[in-house]
Formats: sequence, structure tokens, C-alpha cells
Amino acid sequence: MSSRRNFIQQTALGLTGAIVLPAKGNAAINNFNDQLAPASEIQVGIAGYSFVKFNLEQSLSMMKRIGVNQLSLKDFHLPQYSTQEQIDKVMNACKNAGINVYALGVIYMKSKEAVDTAFAYAQKTGVNMIVGVPNYDLITYAEEQVKKYGIKLAIHNHGPEDALYPAPKDVYDRIKNLDAGMGMCIDIGHSMRAGSIPEKAIRDFKTRLFDLHIKDVSVAAKDGKAIEIGRGVIDFPEVVESLRKINFKGVCSIEFEKDMTDPLPGMAESVGYFKGVLAAEE
Amino acid sequence: MSSRRNFIQQTALGLTGAIVLPAKGNAAINNFNDQLAPASEIQVGIAGYSFVKFNLEQSLSMMKRIGVNQLSLKDFHLPQYSTQEQIDKVMNACKNAGINVYALGVIYMKSKEAVDTAFAYAQKTGVNMIVGVPNYDLITYAEEQVKKYGIKLAIHNHGPEDALYPAPKDVYDRIKNLDAGMGMCIDIGHSMRAGSIPEKAIRDFKTRLFDLHIKDVSVAAKDGKAIEIGRGVIDFPEVVESLRKINFKGVCSIEFEKDMTDPLPGMAESVGYFKGVLAAEE
Repeated sequence: MSSRRNFIQQTALGLTGAIVLPAKGNAAINNFNDQLAPASEIQVGIAGYSFVKFNLEQSLSMMKRIGVNQLSLKDFHLPQYSTQEQIDKVMNACKNAGINVYALGVIYMKSKEAVDTAFAYAQKTGVNMIVGVPNYDLITYAEEQVKKYGIKLAIHNHGPEDALYPAPKDVYDRIKNLDAGMGMCIDIGHSMRAGSIPEKAIRDFKTRLFDLHIKDVSVAAKDGKAIEIGRGVIDFPEVVESLRKINFKGVCSIEFEKDMTDPLPGMAESVGYFKGVLAAEE
Repeated sequence: MSSRRNFIQQTALGLTGAIVLPAKGNAAINNFNDQLAPASEIQVGIAGYSFVKFNLEQSLSMMKRIGVNQLSLKDFHLPQYSTQEQIDKVMNACKNAGINVYALGVIYMKSKEAVDTAFAYAQKTGVNMIVGVPNYDLITYAEEQVKKYGIKLAIHNHGPEDALYPAPKDVYDRIKNLDAGMGMCIDIGHSMRAGSIPEKAIRDFKTRLFDLHIKDVSVAAKDGKAIEIGRGVIDFPEVVESLRKINFKGVCSIEFEKDMTDPLPGMAESVGYFKGVLAAEE
């Protein structure tokens, strides 16, 4: 039995069998500020694209229901050209719902102007990480903005169809010698479809791993489909083992892309599965 | 990496990175006959009481959605006084939905007649296990029926409020010297509320453990409330470790008793969590 498990159980039962402890889940739900979370604990989040069919209020409500409080906000919930007032309104709505926006994205950057827009937007939100996809010829310019703004850029891999970054290595090779604020968001589903085993990619590229999109896929090939976590081909115990091994301290954002008009049950199952693996692998 | 994990991953990726394998979940969903399941594999089921607010069709539909195919049928979905024709209709509806009814219950037995009714009912359904609660003075009579019908009786513990069987030991002590068909359904939530740590009860009473009701509770005390698995005080990695240790080959039926008019998300999260722990603890 691990020391944490042991502590929880001894505290919960005590000597009389009746000393109580707040439920672990409630503790997690109430712990809305990521600065308060133990740095050694991997956190579970949701990647905003999962809510493409829902408005912000509905999305926040679903997150509360499933006990997840870290969000990578997608711009359909907060357009990049929003005024500061609009931005504050959305950021406050998240905060009031107990949801911490820890990243923005995925944001595609196909021009210098798009890079400028993204970083100015991030600065206005107060969020210090963009999950983005800059064209190759904009990487150097993006790096300049990373340094200028003090905002990290985590480049996202999108599988075999992606002309720029099919697999994590395609990101890593282009940023490994750049500023320390240049990193990657490994999308483990697209990685698997691109033939790159996620648990290996996590270890190989640990020095630049800022963020993850966590999902499962039906087959390890281009036509692999989104599926509830645990029902597909990704080995989540191995993924979590790798994350522990590299001492990953960020957020694992579940991106659920099946049943997108009615995602809650599958999203809940996926969050449950991933949390179950996290609990068992510690 | 376990040999199973290794197999799945090597088969999934193959040498070309494109050899495909049916998703684990689909394989599980399609494997509707428990006789076909590997005997070493713990199966996940649902305890029928979870669906108290829903008719059978809705319940089966929810089970399919969350990828669970083992059901402990509660009599509000099939009354004990049903005709053979009514029984066949319900059993066929389950079978056609790909759901295997592996147990019936919980059935309370407060009279000899109630015992007779329960066993005659079970025989008509073709199901070989009753999860039941016989009054103390009916245990011997129930044992006679167990022998007569060849149908097992798994006695269920119901926590501090239960005058008969608060904790698993209260069951065990009354059946340990009886016929081998007399056993127990450990309800781990009620066990925890009664001050009996589930993973210990599983090991202590392994010789008579036929079935489990799997759930989480907010605190380890009488007023502990039902909560999504993983958010409460039960240590599921330890529970699963105990089940592996005793080589349990039956069904772990999740009984979800929160949000009972809208249970699907919490049930899905619970199933996901438990499956995640099962995957990580193998």
C-alpha cells in the first residue's frame, strides 16, 4: 500500500471507525486554483474542443458534473478578437464555476499576424500557455513572442493527415534547440494513429512536454476513431507510468471526440478511467 | 509491462505501425456470454437497483452505452410472481440487448414462502445465483433450497442500519459452515460504512465470496453517502489487489445510488474508474 493510500485509509477509519475525511473528489473539486494543488500530482483537465457543440455555460456545467476543474479553453468559447471586457467576462465565468483556464487552444498560426493575435489574446486572458500550431516558417517568430510575452507555446501534433506535425517527434525536432518556453502538447490519440507509441513519446520528449491531449483510439492506424478511454488500443497504465517516471507536473486534458452532441457519458467514463489508472499507478 | 499489455500493443502497432486490432471495449461489448469470457478476468456488471427510476428498456440501453454486459436483475424489472411467459420475455429482451443476467436480487426473505418464491423464480429464469437477505431463522431452510435447486445464495450486507447483516462478517459467521452454495455478496460501500475495510473483508471471506456490489461512499461512517467511484474514501486499487490475490472470477457489479433520476454520467464515471483500476492493477 502506498503511503498516500495508507494515510487516507487510516485517517478515514481512524481508531474508532468513525473519523471522517472529506471525499477525495470533493477535495479535488474545491481545489480550483492550480497553484494550490500539490506539485507532484498530475491533474486532469478537459480540452475545450470536446465542447464544440455546447456554449460555455453548458460546458462548465458538464465539467463540474464530472469533477474536473482544469480547462484548455478553445476560441469558440472566447474569440481571439474579443475586447478585454469580453475576455474578463468569460474568464470570470470560468472562475466563478470553479474552473481554472490553464491553457488556450488549439490555435492555428498561419501568418505573423495570427501569431501576434494569439499572444496578445493570451496576455489579455492572463493564461500563460498557448497550445498552438505555427507554420514552420513562423516558428522563429513565435519563439520571439514566447520570450517577449513570457507565455509558453506547446505545439500540438495532429496525426497522419497533419502536413506539419503528424507525430510528437515532428514537433520535438523543430523546437528542441529553441527557447525553453517552446514545447509540445502531445496528443496521444493522434500520436498513436501516426505510429508513435504515446508512453515512449512522453519519455523521449520529456524535456519539452508542457501539456497533453488524452484520448483513446479504436485502432493504431490512420483511420483510428475516437472512443471512450479504456476501450481502445492505448495502454493507459503505461502512459501514466511514463508520466510518473518523467515527474510530469502539468495537466492531462481529456479530449473526447465521440458522440459530440451528447458527450457527457463518454467523457465521464473517460475521466473515470484515467483517474482510476492514476490512482492505481501511484 | 505485463504480457497482456505487451501483446495488445505489439499486435496493435505491429511492425508496420498499421496492423489493426479490434478495440478492447468492442471485444468486451461483443462478448455477451460470460461463459466465453476468460475465467481469470474479473467482469464488471451493474446491480439492478441502480436503475430503480427506469424501465428495463432504458436500463439496458444505459448498460450498452457504458459498455457493461453483466446485470444483477432487480425484481422491479421482473416481478417474482411473473409467469414463465413474462419471465422469458424479459430474459430474451436482456439477451437480445447483449446483456447477461448473472444474478437476481437483492431479494428479501422474511418467510418460508418468500424463500420458496425466490428459488422457484430463479429456477424459471435459469439464473443460478440469488443475492438475498434471509432472516436468521430462515437460513437453514434457504440452505435446503440451495441444495435442492442447485442455485447459489449470496447474502448481502447493508451497513450499520441493517439489523441482520450490517457487515460482511455478520454474513460470513452465519454461513461459513453451511453448504458450499451458501455465500456472500459483499457490498463494499455498506461494508465501509460499517467500519469493515472492503479489501480486508474480501481476503478474510474469500472462500464464500460469490458476488460484490461495488460503490464508493463519501465518509467511512454510518452517514456516508453514495458518490462516484474514486471520489470517496474507498481505496479501489487495494480492493482490486485483494480480488486479484484471491483469484476472484466473478462479477463486480457497480451499484450507483447517487443522482438516481439521472445516473448515466456518474455511473459511466464509476465504471470507467473501476475499469481503469482493473487495467492498471493487473
